[in-house]
Amino acid sequence: MASPNWPIDEAPGRDVRAAIPEDFRLESGERLAAAEVIGRLHGPDHGPLIVIAGGISSDRFAGRWWSWAVRAGGPVDLNRARALGFDLLPGRDDPGVTITTADQARLLALLLDELEEPIVDAFVGASYGGCIGLAFAAAFPERIGALVAISAAHRSHPAATAWRGVQRRLLAFARDCGREAEGVALARELAMTSYRTAEEFGLRFGPTPPRAAGEPYPVCDYLIARGAAYAEATSAARWIALSDSLDRHAVAPGAIRCPLTVVGFTSDRLVPIEDSRELAERAPNLRAFFEAPSIFGHDAFLKEREQVGRALHDALTPLYATPQREIAA
Amino acid sequence: MASPNWPIDEAPGRDVRAAIPEDFRLESGERLAAAEVIGRLHGPDHGPLIVIAGGISSDRFAGRWWSWAVRAGGPVDLNRARALGFDLLPGRDDPGVTITTADQARLLALLLDELEEPIVDAFVGASYGGCIGLAFAAAFPERIGALVAISAAHRSHPAATAWRGVQRRLLAFARDCGREAEGVALARELAMTSYRTAEEFGLRFGPTPPRAAGEPYPVCDYLIARGAAYAEATSAARWIALSDSLDRHAVAPGAIRCPLTVVGFTSDRLVPIEDSRELAERAPNLRAFFEAPSIFGHDAFLKEREQVGRALHDALTPLYATPQREIAA
Repeated sequence: MASPNWPIDEAPGRDVRAAIPEDFRLESGERLAAAEVIGRLHGPDHGPLIVIAGGISSDRFAGRWWSWAVRAGGPVDLNRARALGFDLLPGRDDPGVTITTADQARLLALLLDELEEPIVDAFVGASYGGCIGLAFAAAFPERIGALVAISAAHRSHPAATAWRGVQRRLLAFARDCGREAEGVALARELAMTSYRTAEEFGLRFGPTPPRAAGEPYPVCDYLIARGAAYAEATSAARWIALSDSLDRHAVAPGAIRCPLTVVGFTSDRLVPIEDSRELAERAPNLRAFFEAPSIFGHDAFLKEREQVGRALHDALTPLYATPQREIAA
Repeated sequence: MASPNWPIDEAPGRDVRAAIPEDFRLESGERLAAAEVIGRLHGPDHGPLIVIAGGISSDRFAGRWWSWAVRAGGPVDLNRARALGFDLLPGRDDPGVTITTADQARLLALLLDELEEPIVDAFVGASYGGCIGLAFAAAFPERIGALVAISAAHRSHPAATAWRGVQRRLLAFARDCGREAEGVALARELAMTSYRTAEEFGLRFGPTPPRAAGEPYPVCDYLIARGAAYAEATSAARWIALSDSLDRHAVAPGAIRCPLTVVGFTSDRLVPIEDSRELAERAPNLRAFFEAPSIFGHDAFLKEREQVGRALHDALTPLYATPQREIAA
C-alpha cells in the first residue's frame, strides 16, 4: 500500500471546537472538567462526512494515528470525503469521571451541532471508537448514514474486563505510591500483552535468558520499551475512566438501525470473535460482516491494512459515488 | 470422584530432610540461603516411589494441594505407592536467586540420596513441577523409571514469558515502593488471568457495572479475592526467582530417555498445546500423549480430574501391578 502523500505530522486539517454546555451531565450525574470538545476535520471543504474514532489512546489526529487508512487515495479517501476525528474526554489533566460510550456519543453530537452537520454519512470506529459508534447509532439513529464497527462489539467480555480491571488497580496503586508514570508504563506493558497474540510473540521473540532472575528476556525488552514510550501519554485518572468506559459499554444490537458493517478478527482476545458474530447476527440492518484471521489480535485494526482496507472500501465507496448533499443543495 | 478418606490437613505423611552441602552451587554460580531440602513422604512404608511436583505455589504437602489425585484409592494411590512431595527453593524468607529447573532436579536428588532411594519409579509433574521432571529425566536418566509431564513442555513460550515478565516487574515495583504484599496480591490477580480462560470467565461472570469508574466488576471481585488470599503466601523475591526459573527452563526433548507421558490442554495459554505436541513428537520414548479441551486453561491440571486421572491411571497402574524392589529384594 502506498505511503501517505504528506509527512504524517502534516496531515492537512483544521481544528473544530464545541463548547460543552454548563448543564451537560454524564449518565453518572457527574460533570466534565473540560469546557469544550475538540475535533479535527481532515480533507476537502466539501464531500461526505466520515467520523473516525479509534482506541482509548487515539485522538483527533486520525490522519496521524491511522495514517494508512485516513489519507488522500486511502480507504478513507481524503480526496473525496471529509474525515472528522475528535479527542476523547476526559483530558490528560482532568480529574477522573465515570463516562459511558453513550456520553462520548453525546459529546460528538455537540461537535456536529457546532459544525452544523445534522448527519454523519458514515461512522468508522475501531476498538473503543467502534463502541462509541454503536452507542451513537443507538442514540442518534436519524444522524448516521452507515456504521463500520471494527474490533468492537455490543458488549464487553468478562475476560477483557478481568485484564482491564487489573490495569486499573495497578494504575491506582502506582498513583497511591506517588509513582504514577511508572504505573502507566507498567499498565501499558500489561495492556500490550492483551492487544497482541501468543503467535506473534512466538514468531518475534527468542528464548535467550538474561544473566540473572528479574532481568528482562527479549519479549520483556519490547514490552518495557512500549511501556516507557507511553509513560507520559496519559494520566492514571484518564486511563481508568476510559478503561472503565469500555467495560461499562452495552448497546442492544437491535438498536443499530443504520446499515452496519462489522469487522472482527478471530485472534482478538479483547473482543472475542463470537461477540462480533453475535452483533452481526442480531443487528437488524447488517450490510456486511468481515471475519478474518490475524497474528495481531486486537491490534489487527491498526495492522491488517488489506483486510480492514477492503471492508472500508466496501462500506465507503457508495458514499464517494453518490452526489453529495452539499453539491445537490 | 470420591472425597479423600481423611481431612486434607491430616494426610498421613512424614517429613524428610536433606542437608544442602556447603559446596552446592546453582548453575548461576550462586549459593542458596537454605541449609536443607525438605520433602514429605505420603503413603505406606513400602511400595513404588512416585515423586509429585506441582506449580510454583505448590509445596511438599502433595496430599493437600492435589488432594483428589494423591490419596488412598486415588490416581496416585497411597494404598499402593509412596508419594514424595518437596518444598521448592528458595524459601519464603530467603533472598532472591537465579535458579534453574535443573537446579531443582539436583536438589531433589539430594533428598533421594538422603532417603537412600537410587531410583524414582515415576515422576508426576504438573506446570513448574513438570518442567522439573523433564530436567530431572535429562540430568539423571538412570534414576527415573517413568515421567508424566502435565501442562508442561520442554521450553517456555515467549507469550508466557511476556505475562510473567510483567508480573516480575510489578513485584519489584511494589517492593521498591515498600508495599510488597499489595504487589504480590496484584501480581496474583494478573497471574490468575493467565491461568484461566476467557470461556470460563464468560460463563461465570456477568457484566453488572459498579457505580463508579475504578470500582470492581464481578470478575474483578473474584480476582481481588484470589489476590488477597495470596498476599502473604510468598515474597516478591521468591516469586521472581521461581517465575524466572519457568522462563529459563529449556530441556532437549531427545534427552528424555525414560518412558514419557505428556498431558496437554488445548486452552492452556501458558503452555500452548503446540509445545506439548512438539515435546511428545520429539521424545524418543513416548509412552502416551493425552490432549484434551478444557475451560480451565493452564489450571486444567488441578481441575480436570477425569482427564488427568485417566492419564495418571494409564501411566501408574503398571507400577502398582509389578512386584516392587523392596518386596523382590
